[in-house]
Amino acid sequence: MENPMQIGMIGLGRMGMNMARRLVQGGHEVLAFNRSPAKTDQLAAEGGLATYSLKEFVSRLEPPRTIWIMLPAGTPVDEHIKQLTGMLDRGDLIVDGGNSNFKDDIRRAEQLKTMGLLYADAGVSGGIWGLTVGYCTMVGGPAEAYERLRPALDTLAPPEGHLHCGAVGAGHFVKMIHNGIEYGMMQAYAEGFALLEASPYGKGMDFGEVAHLWNQGSVVRSWLLELAETAFAQDGRLEGIAPYVEDSGEGRWTVDQAVELGVSAPVLTLSLMERFRSRDEGAFADRLLAALRNQFGGHAIKKSGE
Amino acid sequence: MENPMQIGMIGLGRMGMNMARRLVQGGHEVLAFNRSPAKTDQLAAEGGLATYSLKEFVSRLEPPRTIWIMLPAGTPVDEHIKQLTGMLDRGDLIVDGGNSNFKDDIRRAEQLKTMGLLYADAGVSGGIWGLTVGYCTMVGGPAEAYERLRPALDTLAPPEGHLHCGAVGAGHFVKMIHNGIEYGMMQAYAEGFALLEASPYGKGMDFGEVAHLWNQGSVVRSWLLELAETAFAQDGRLEGIAPYVEDSGEGRWTVDQAVELGVSAPVLTLSLMERFRSRDEGAFADRLLAALRNQFGGHAIKKSGE
Amino acid sequence: MENPMQIGMIGLGRMGMNMARRLVQGGHEVLAFNRSPAKTDQLAAEGGLATYSLKEFVSRLEPPRTIWIMLPAGTPVDEHIKQLTGMLDRGDLIVDGGNSNFKDDIRRAEQLKTMGLLYADAGVSGGIWGLTVGYCTMVGGPAEAYERLRPALDTLAPPEGHLHCGAVGAGHFVKMIHNGIEYGMMQAYAEGFALLEASPYGKGMDFGEVAHLWNQGSVVRSWLLELAETAFAQDGRLEGIAPYVEDSGEGRWTVDQAVELGVSAPVLTLSLMERFRSRDEGAFADRLLAALRNQFGGHAIKKSGE
Amino acid sequence: MENPMQIGMIGLGRMGMNMARRLVQGGHEVLAFNRSPAKTDQLAAEGGLATYSLKEFVSRLEPPRTIWIMLPAGTPVDEHIKQLTGMLDRGDLIVDGGNSNFKDDIRRAEQLKTMGLLYADAGVSGGIWGLTVGYCTMVGGPAEAYERLRPALDTLAPPEGHLHCGAVGAGHFVKMIHNGIEYGMMQAYAEGFALLEASPYGKGMDFGEVAHLWNQGSVVRSWLLELAETAFAQDGRLEGIAPYVEDSGEGRWTVDQAVELGVSAPVLTLSLMERFRSRDEGAFADRLLAALRNQFGGHAIKKSGE
Repeated sequence: MENPMQIGMIGLGRMGMNMARRLVQGGHEVLAFNRSPAKTDQLAAEGGLATYSLKEFVSRLEPPRTIWIMLPAGTPVDEHIKQLTGMLDRGDLIVDGGNSNFKDDIRRAEQLKTMGLLYADAGVSGGIWGLTVGYCTMVGGPAEAYERLRPALDTLAPPEGHLHCGAVGAGHFVKMIHNGIEYGMMQAYAEGFALLEASPYGKGMDFGEVAHLWNQGSVVRSWLLELAETAFAQDGRLEGIAPYVEDSGEGRWTVDQAVELGVSAPVLTLSLMERFRSRDEGAFADRLLAALRNQFGGHAIKKSGE
Repeated sequence: MENPMQIGMIGLGRMGMNMARRLVQGGHEVLAFNRSPAKTDQLAAEGGLATYSLKEFVSRLEPPRTIWIMLPAGTPVDEHIKQLTGMLDRGDLIVDGGNSNFKDDIRRAEQLKTMGLLYADAGVSGGIWGLTVGYCTMVGGPAEAYERLRPALDTLAPPEGHLHCGAVGAGHFVKMIHNGIEYGMMQAYAEGFALLEASPYGKGMDFGEVAHLWNQGSVVRSWLLELAETAFAQDGRLEGIAPYVEDSGEGRWTVDQAVELGVSAPVLTLSLMERFRSRDEGAFADRLLAALRNQFGGHAIKKSGE
Repeated sequence: MENPMQIGMIGLGRMGMNMARRLVQGGHEVLAFNRSPAKTDQLAAEGGLATYSLKEFVSRLEPPRTIWIMLPAGTPVDEHIKQLTGMLDRGDLIVDGGNSNFKDDIRRAEQLKTMGLLYADAGVSGGIWGLTVGYCTMVGGPAEAYERLRPALDTLAPPEGHLHCGAVGAGHFVKMIHNGIEYGMMQAYAEGFALLEASPYGKGMDFGEVAHLWNQGSVVRSWLLELAETAFAQDGRLEGIAPYVEDSGEGRWTVDQAVELGVSAPVLTLSLMERFRSRDEGAFADRLLAALRNQFGGHAIKKSGE
Repeated sequence: MENPMQIGMIGLGRMGMNMARRLVQGGHEVLAFNRSPAKTDQLAAEGGLATYSLKEFVSRLEPPRTIWIMLPAGTPVDEHIKQLTGMLDRGDLIVDGGNSNFKDDIRRAEQLKTMGLLYADAGVSGGIWGLTVGYCTMVGGPAEAYERLRPALDTLAPPEGHLHCGAVGAGHFVKMIHNGIEYGMMQAYAEGFALLEASPYGKGMDFGEVAHLWNQGSVVRSWLLELAETAFAQDGRLEGIAPYVEDSGEGRWTVDQAVELGVSAPVLTLSLMERFRSRDEGAFADRLLAALRNQFGGHAIKKSGE
C-alpha cells in the first residue's frame, strides 16, 4: 500500500459494508459507524475500527476529516449531515457515495461551504460484484476534495476506474445517466430474447448458449450479457421469476432530466415505463382501450377475472 | 331516392348486414348471398332479395354487375373472387369492402383486369354506429368504378362521407392509416385517464363527467371521447373489464408501412405494442429484466406465482 | 342575463382579453388591470371598466372580491398575488386561470388560507376559438369558490362546459392531462398524414379532402381533425411551415406526473419528445450513432455540412 | 491446423475478403470467385486459389462441395444459387453467410432439397474487427451441414464463437435479433451521452474519459462503449459527423417480427425509427404539428427556411 489514508464510513448496508471491506483490505484505516452495531462489529472483526455514536466517530477521526456517507438517498443523508455539521471542523470533507440526486448535492454543498466544510458526491457502480472487481466511481466536487480522496478511490475502484467528473453534483449526474443507459441496454436485451422466445426457433433454443455465443466477438457483447448467461444457466426459461421489475430513483431522474433539458430520449424513457407497466396488473389504460373498442365496434371484451 | 341501383352483396356479417340494410332502406335493389341462409332470409324480410348460391346470385344480377364483398380479409375474399370469375362478364365490377391489405387489392386488380373485370377497394369506418350515422367510405380503383358505385355510396355514407382516394388499393391504404391514427388517439385518451386514475385527484373524480366536460369546447373533443363518456357512464371505474386489448390487421400493417417507407411513427407503433403487452401476462422480457437486476445488484426478485 | 356578477380580471393577453370580452358581452361587470394600459383602454371601449393600478383595481371591487388572474405561469402570478394580499379582505377569492402547475396552486392556497383568503385554480381550454365557442373550464378549489364563480363560468364556458374537478389544484391537474392527451392526438394525426405523404398513394392526394372525409362519420373524427382540414386548405403540403414544434409546460408536467406516479404513458411521452427532436437540428445522439456505426462496421458517415 | 478443409467463397466484398483471408491464414484451401477479378487476384496473392468463372469455381471444388456465399442479401444471392444449381452434385452444401432474411433461407432450402442439395445459413457479426478478433457466427440448417462446416467455423470464429442455432433460418434469425439489440444498445448510449452533452455538466466534460471510466467495472461496460471511447478520442464533440444514421434490413426485420409475433419491443422499434427520423429533414409530421398549434392556439409558426 503506497498511500494509506484514514477514512470514516457511515452506513454499512449491502454497498457500504463491501466498500469498507475493500478499503480495509487495501490497507486504509477505516472508522465505521452504523445504526445497527452488529455490522460495525463485523467490520471491526475484519480489520476496521468500530464506533458506536456519531460523536465517537467524529472524535476519533483526525482533522481534516474525510467522511464517506453510504446511506439511502434523501432524508437519511440530510439528517446525518445535519448532525455532523455541529461536530466538524473547517476543512473537513463529507462525501455522499449513495444514490442521491445531483440537485441535493448542490444544495448541500452550498450549505456546508458557509461553514467551511467541503462536500463531494460519488456515484458508485458495480453492485454485488464491486467487492471483487472494484467499484467504478464517478466523483463531483472541488478538485481539492477529489485529490484528498484519491488514495481511497485507487483502492475502491479498478485501475482507471474513478474520474473527477466536474463540479459538485457531477458525480451523481454521470452516475444517473449511467443508470439510464443501463435501463436501456437491459430492455434491449430483454426484448431481443423475448422475440427469440416467441418465435418458432426459440422453442428448443438454449438462451444461455446464445448469450454466451454473442459474448464471443459479436457487436452486442457486454457485461450485462455475461450476467444473462448466468441467469439462463440458473433457470433456462426464467420460470421461477415473476415479470415484476422494480425501478430506482436514478432511472426516473434521467427521464426528468430529459424533460427538463428538452432532449429526446425515447429509449431510456420507455425502458423506465416498461418497468412501471410490469407492475400494473389491472392496467386502467388497457381497460379503457378495451371499453372503447367495445363501444365503437361491438368487439367482445374480456371480463375482468375471466 | 334519386338514383337507385342494383347491387349484389356477399357476406352478411355484422358489418355486411347493416350495410345491406342501409342500402335497402335507401331504395336500392340489393341481392344478397351469405354462407348461412338465415341471414339472407332476414335481409329478404327487410326488403332485400335472397339468393342461395353464388350461381343464382350472379345470374340474377344484370350486367354490368356490381358486386360488393364484405368478408373477413384474406382467404375468404380470394376464394369468393376465384369462384366468381368463372361466372362474370367483361365490365362487371367487384368491390372488396372488407379490411383487406392494399397489397392484396393490387394483386387482385391485376388478375381481374386480364379478364376484363373491374376491381375497386373500399375501406369502411363507422362500426356498429354506421347503420344510423352512415359509413365513412374510402374508395380506391379506377374512376369508372367509383362513378358506378356513387349512388350506393351516397346512401351508405353520411353526406360528403365518401371519397375516391386514388388508384386501386388507395381506399384500403387510407383506411389502414385511419385505423393507425385511431389506435394512437385511443392510447392517448387511455394514458390520460390512467394518469387521472392514479393521482390523488382521481380518487373521487367522475371520469364520465370529465370526458363530457372535455367534449364541450376543449381541444381534445372527439367522437371517441363521446364513447368514453358512455363507457364511464356504464362502469365508472371499468371494473368489469379486463386489461386485455385485441388488435386487428390494419394496426399492424400501419407499422409495417412505417418500416417499409422508413417513416418514424412512434405513437402509432407504441399504441399497437401496448396492445401486445396487454395480452402478455408472463412477459418474458420483464422476467429477464428482473433476473438481470438480481444478477448485478442482488435485488430481490418476485417469484412467479407470488 | 340572469345572474350578473362583478369580477376583476388581471392580465389582458391573448387569452385574458378575449375572456374579459366574453364576460362583458355576457353582462358581467368586469374591472380590468393590465400592465400596459392600451389593452385596458381597449376593453373599456368595449364595455369593461378600466383601472390603472392594482390599488385602484382592488379598491373598486366590492368585497367579497372575485379576482381572476390571467398571466403567464410562474413568477408573474406569484408576484401579483404577493402584491394583492396586502390589499385584500378576508373572504376575497383569487382565481388563477393561467397555465400554472397544480403544485403551485397547493402552495398558494395554503399561504392564502392563513390570511382568510380563498384560492381557486381554473384550467381553460379553447385557444383562439374560445371567444366565439366558449372556454372549456376545469376548476379546482373549495366548493364555495366554485359556486361564487358559477355565473362567470356559465358565461365563459359553452353549455355544460365547466366542472368542479376537485380540491385545489384539480383544475390545473385535469387541464394538464388534457394537454398531454392533446399532444398524443396531434402526434397520432401527424404520423398518419406523414405516412400518407410518404406513400405512393400520397402523391396526388388532397389531404384536406381526406381530413374532411374522416370527419364524416369515421372513428377518428374530432375538432383537431377539423383544424387539419383548414390547415391543409391553406397550404396543401404545408410547404411554408418549418418542422419546428414548440412545447408548453403542461406537456412536460404530464410526463413528470407519469414518472412520479409510476404510470406508463408512452404515447404522451413520445409526443413530447418528438417536439424536442423537431428542434434539435444537430442531434448529438444521432451523431454518436453514426460514429459508432463507422467504428464497428466501417460504414461511411455523412460529414457535417454535407 | 488440425483439420483443414476445402471451401469455396463467392463474394470478396468488405466482409467476404476478410473472412476468406482468415480462412486462408487458418490453413484451409479457399477457392474464391468474385465478380471483379482484382479482388480474386488479391486473395490469390495471399494464399487463396483464384477462379474466374462460376464454372471453373465449381469444377475445381471436390464433391461434396462446400460453397460459402458472401453477397448482398436478396437478388444477388438468389441469382448465384440459381446458376450454381445446374452445376452441383447431390450432397453439395451452399451456405449463405450474408445478411439474408430467414424467410429467404427457408424458401431456398426447400428448393435445394428437391435437388439433393444442402443449404445452411450463417449470421456473421464482427464487422471490420472480425479479421483480427474473429467472427461470431450463428448457423442454421441441418446438423450435417453444421458439422461439415465446423473446421472452417473454428477458424472464422473466436473460441466458442460459433453455434448451431437450429433449423434452417435460425442462424439469420438469431443474427437479426442480435442486430435489433445492437440498435437498442447504441440508442441507449447515444441518448445518455446526448443528455450529458445538453447538461451544464457536459460543457467541459471529456466524453472519451467518461466512456473509458464506465468500461472499468461499471454495469454498462461493453464493446460498443469501447468503440465510443475511440470515437470520442478522434472527435471529442463529433463535430465532423452529420446526424444522419443509416439502417439495414435486419433492424427492420426485427420490428417486422415483433409485429408478426405480437411481441412488444418498444426499444428495438424506436431505435430503428430514430434512424428514420435522423434522415427526415423536413419532417412532414412536425410541420403538421406546427400547423395545428397555429390553428387552435394562434401560436406563431416558424416559416420553412427561417
